[in-house]
Amino acid sequence: MLEKVDLTKKLSKEEYKEKMDQLEARLGRLQRECKALNIPILIVFEGFGAAGKGLQIGRLIQSMDPRGFEVHTIKNETEEERMHPFMWRFWTKTPARGRIAIFDGSWYRRILIDRFEKRTKNKDLANAFHSINSFEEQLADDGNLIIKLFLCIDKKEQKKRFDKLAKNKESAWRVSQGDRERNAHYEEYAAMMEEMLFQTDTDYAPWTIIESMDKRFATVKIYTTVIKAMADQIEKVRRESEEQAALKAAKAAEQAETEHAEAEKTETEGKTETAADSDDVSNIAREADQEMKELQVSILSGADLTLRYSREEYKEKLDKLQKKMEKLHGELYRRRIPVVLGFEGWDAGGKGGAIKRLTQKMDPRGYVVNPTASPNDIEKAHHYLWRFWRAMPKDGHVAIFDRTWYGRVMVERIEGFCTTDEWKRAYKEINDMEKDLHDAGAIVIKFWMHIDKDEQKRRFTERQQNPEKQWKITDEDWRNREKWDQYEDCVNEMLMRTSTEYAPWVVVEGNDKYYARVKVLKTVVDAIEERLKED
Amino acid sequence: MLEKVDLTKKLSKEEYKEKMDQLEARLGRLQRECKALNIPILIVFEGFGAAGKGLQIGRLIQSMDPRGFEVHTIKNETEEERMHPFMWRFWTKTPARGRIAIFDGSWYRRILIDRFEKRTKNKDLANAFHSINSFEEQLADDGNLIIKLFLCIDKKEQKKRFDKLAKNKESAWRVSQGDRERNAHYEEYAAMMEEMLFQTDTDYAPWTIIESMDKRFATVKIYTTVIKAMADQIEKVRRESEEQAALKAAKAAEQAETEHAEAEKTETEGKTETAADSDDVSNIAREADQEMKELQVSILSGADLTLRYSREEYKEKLDKLQKKMEKLHGELYRRRIPVVLGFEGWDAGGKGGAIKRLTQKMDPRGYVVNPTASPNDIEKAHHYLWRFWRAMPKDGHVAIFDRTWYGRVMVERIEGFCTTDEWKRAYKEINDMEKDLHDAGAIVIKFWMHIDKDEQKRRFTERQQNPEKQWKITDEDWRNREKWDQYEDCVNEMLMRTSTEYAPWVVVEGNDKYYARVKVLKTVVDAIEERLKED
Repeated sequence: MLEKVDLTKKLSKEEYKEKMDQLEARLGRLQRECKALNIPILIVFEGFGAAGKGLQIGRLIQSMDPRGFEVHTIKNETEEERMHPFMWRFWTKTPARGRIAIFDGSWYRRILIDRFEKRTKNKDLANAFHSINSFEEQLADDGNLIIKLFLCIDKKEQKKRFDKLAKNKESAWRVSQGDRERNAHYEEYAAMMEEMLFQTDTDYAPWTIIESMDKRFATVKIYTTVIKAMADQIEKVRRESEEQAALKAAKAAEQAETEHAEAEKTETEGKTETAADSDDVSNIAREADQEMKELQVSILSGADLTLRYSREEYKEKLDKLQKKMEKLHGELYRRRIPVVLGFEGWDAGGKGGAIKRLTQKMDPRGYVVNPTASPNDIEKAHHYLWRFWRAMPKDGHVAIFDRTWYGRVMVERIEGFCTTDEWKRAYKEINDMEKDLHDAGAIVIKFWMHIDKDEQKRRFTERQQNPEKQWKITDEDWRNREKWDQYEDCVNEMLMRTSTEYAPWVVVEGNDKYYARVKVLKTVVDAIEERLKED
Repeated sequence: MLEKVDLTKKLSKEEYKEKMDQLEARLGRLQRECKALNIPILIVFEGFGAAGKGLQIGRLIQSMDPRGFEVHTIKNETEEERMHPFMWRFWTKTPARGRIAIFDGSWYRRILIDRFEKRTKNKDLANAFHSINSFEEQLADDGNLIIKLFLCIDKKEQKKRFDKLAKNKESAWRVSQGDRERNAHYEEYAAMMEEMLFQTDTDYAPWTIIESMDKRFATVKIYTTVIKAMADQIEKVRRESEEQAALKAAKAAEQAETEHAEAEKTETEGKTETAADSDDVSNIAREADQEMKELQVSILSGADLTLRYSREEYKEKLDKLQKKMEKLHGELYRRRIPVVLGFEGWDAGGKGGAIKRLTQKMDPRGYVVNPTASPNDIEKAHHYLWRFWRAMPKDGHVAIFDRTWYGRVMVERIEGFCTTDEWKRAYKEINDMEKDLHDAGAIVIKFWMHIDKDEQKRRFTERQQNPEKQWKITDEDWRNREKWDQYEDCVNEMLMRTSTEYAPWVVVEGNDKYYARVKVLKTVVDAIEERLKED
């Protein structure tokens, strides 16, 4: 997750002020609503040192009714705390129904700072993760809303902030030896954070990354995240009580025809009342959703689509890489290393062409290209991952997927072929599957073949005008094109949530086909060479 | 879990035949129903070697429509399987909707046989458990019913069966060197099984222990387990679609008053039809529930309530143990070891008396007795475990609970103070909490103060007649007494599911108060001495 974070996002003072007026009013409004509905809330601030946790908590509580929340600062254990089971101090601080507990630092220190400083042993890690997930799941099951914010800054910025704090007499005490150590070993510490995010990013308590280089941007993203989570929870609680009411009414109606009219009357009255409120909250939820998308770091927009190769450069590089690939393919077979390559991208993004160049010199007995169409009846009768599991390669073989299991969080999500719950939990399911492949020794890489909208139009038109390529373009392609923005949002979220150390996403700048094909080949060649060096 | 399994249960041929006629008819009936509702089912057979997995699968499928299931035998990996990611062979064998996949051995071999034979490394265990739970959760989320059966026999019986197989030429090949090894190290292997049960006994895929010394008993319990699980799943699927329908009808009614009458009519018609079916399945579910209780190994009924001490024996033992306890208590403090003691039991079972004798010579600054009453308003506003976490002892201190967190799976379950989902997931929540305490270094023991119904009546009457004890007896005690059988079922299930290696249940034979008090003291003294030896 972390390597895809874009830390360049900023907000001007004017943008900030404009957004904040509205956000502050909404947060206050939702806090009252959560209180009325008896929803207990935990807000967890974690992240890199000097990322601004304290400052951001200060800004967040400004719009809250002070009678409704408490802030808990989690530092080194007190003598009293050290003498209790680790989770004791957190259990005792869980909020009562209708109240908010804000944690500046949390139970995650055990697998972050404590782990870095070797107070948590490696052999205890599995238990520590189990214990954290169990804690959060129990609270979520009991109706608690858990919002986890992870504040990110880069190594240089962190050092700058530490230096600034250290220079000033009044703040020098805030920079500890430990802070300096973690800055010096920033990458090592980030790897622990990455593992923590993988193990604890659950549907009942998901993480949100807050890019915190720019304080204004971070504040707006934190407010928006909290508002969206609260609005969603309010809607969920209301929906459930509506379902209960409807079911009760239906049962009552069934049991006694005579009482029917009355029961229904009451129900309808109740309905009208909540309907008005719930429209209001729905609006907030929808707008927060939109706002989140705007704040979302667009990984795609970071791609430089002007990158290109001349025909000569292309020929030369392609030839060299294909020869390397041919050799490496034999080596993979000899060393029994499996490879899984997933290709996704815009229609006409160049998947087919890239796969063709990749495999051109490979021994056809050693790889399979799996084209992924809509699932057939037998496939539909199974879990959506079943057909991909079936196609996973043997040791020493290469499996290439032309479109993949990521359909679940793109087309199925957008077209409503699966429920919201289903695509939401798919990120974890997919990460878990790819981890299984990685643990079995596989090299796993996913490519997003990226072009811009104009380039797509050019290619579509070309296809239509060329009799030999007409079969490649259908009405559906044009229809999908109309949903470009929706897809872009989904793709950005997907890239962020499923790009892992063990199965990274590679965005391929594809406006120039030459450049794209070479980049795909080079990425695969590099990854294989890297792996072969390992053993 | 395993140490509480009672392997003495048997069924006569007549009982067996009588039960099986009905069970076979029901299983066939439910299989058709599951097919009609498109429910995919996985039935997993695991357990000790020679416990009869093959035989029992043979008996189970006798009543099934052979077009509806497949049996997968999981032995050593084939060359093909060895060359794929471990979970590949299981993913590819998941059943299509409406079909049943039966596994003779399964994905658990990785953390059982493979672990025992050191093919699975300790450092990979956390990932292996994560991967298994993820696999099962994904399938359950997708509507699969997962039934996991664990067949138990003891070491002696296992050896006898291996010897018998080995003697016969035709079956000798079935006993491998590995089987013999696992029999020789039965206890070590059982500990791995115990850990496996702890880590993978989830609400979405729970384990059922099948006592398999007597084959007839095992068959009946397997049939009953499968029937109950199927009936429950059918009811769940129907309930969900009913809820959907009711909600849809309510929404439709709201939207268009004119269409109202019609929508409702359709709905009611649909209802009547499913109601008939669902009554039928409900009956089966209820009866299977009753049947399961009868098959349940009653841990309580195994207690020998005739055990007693004379007044002299009592005095002497008590005096010796209390002196020991006094010394050990100081030692605990010095070594900073916390102790958590939970007391549950029948009303008038002698909890108070036992706690009094236990603490009599202990330094009052080093222990606290926490009486657990109905939760007050503040406690009710939190997770049910919150108040117990608050009372957990510091290092070196002893916390004694007079009634405990187990109220969740007894009084709250029986009186309907919590939902079925809530008490069902409480077993895992409680096991996780006690594991946290154990991992923090605590000694955790739970006592069930056991008396029989006659003895309770005698004590109640005595209390009522003695002016000084009258305050101890209320109408509620008499009311609870009427629910004796319900409580007994709950207690048996609780003892089975929450007695762990790290936090065992001890059933205290309590008809004789002298015997009970001494047993409690001795258990605590022994556990502390054992622990002090460890470091």
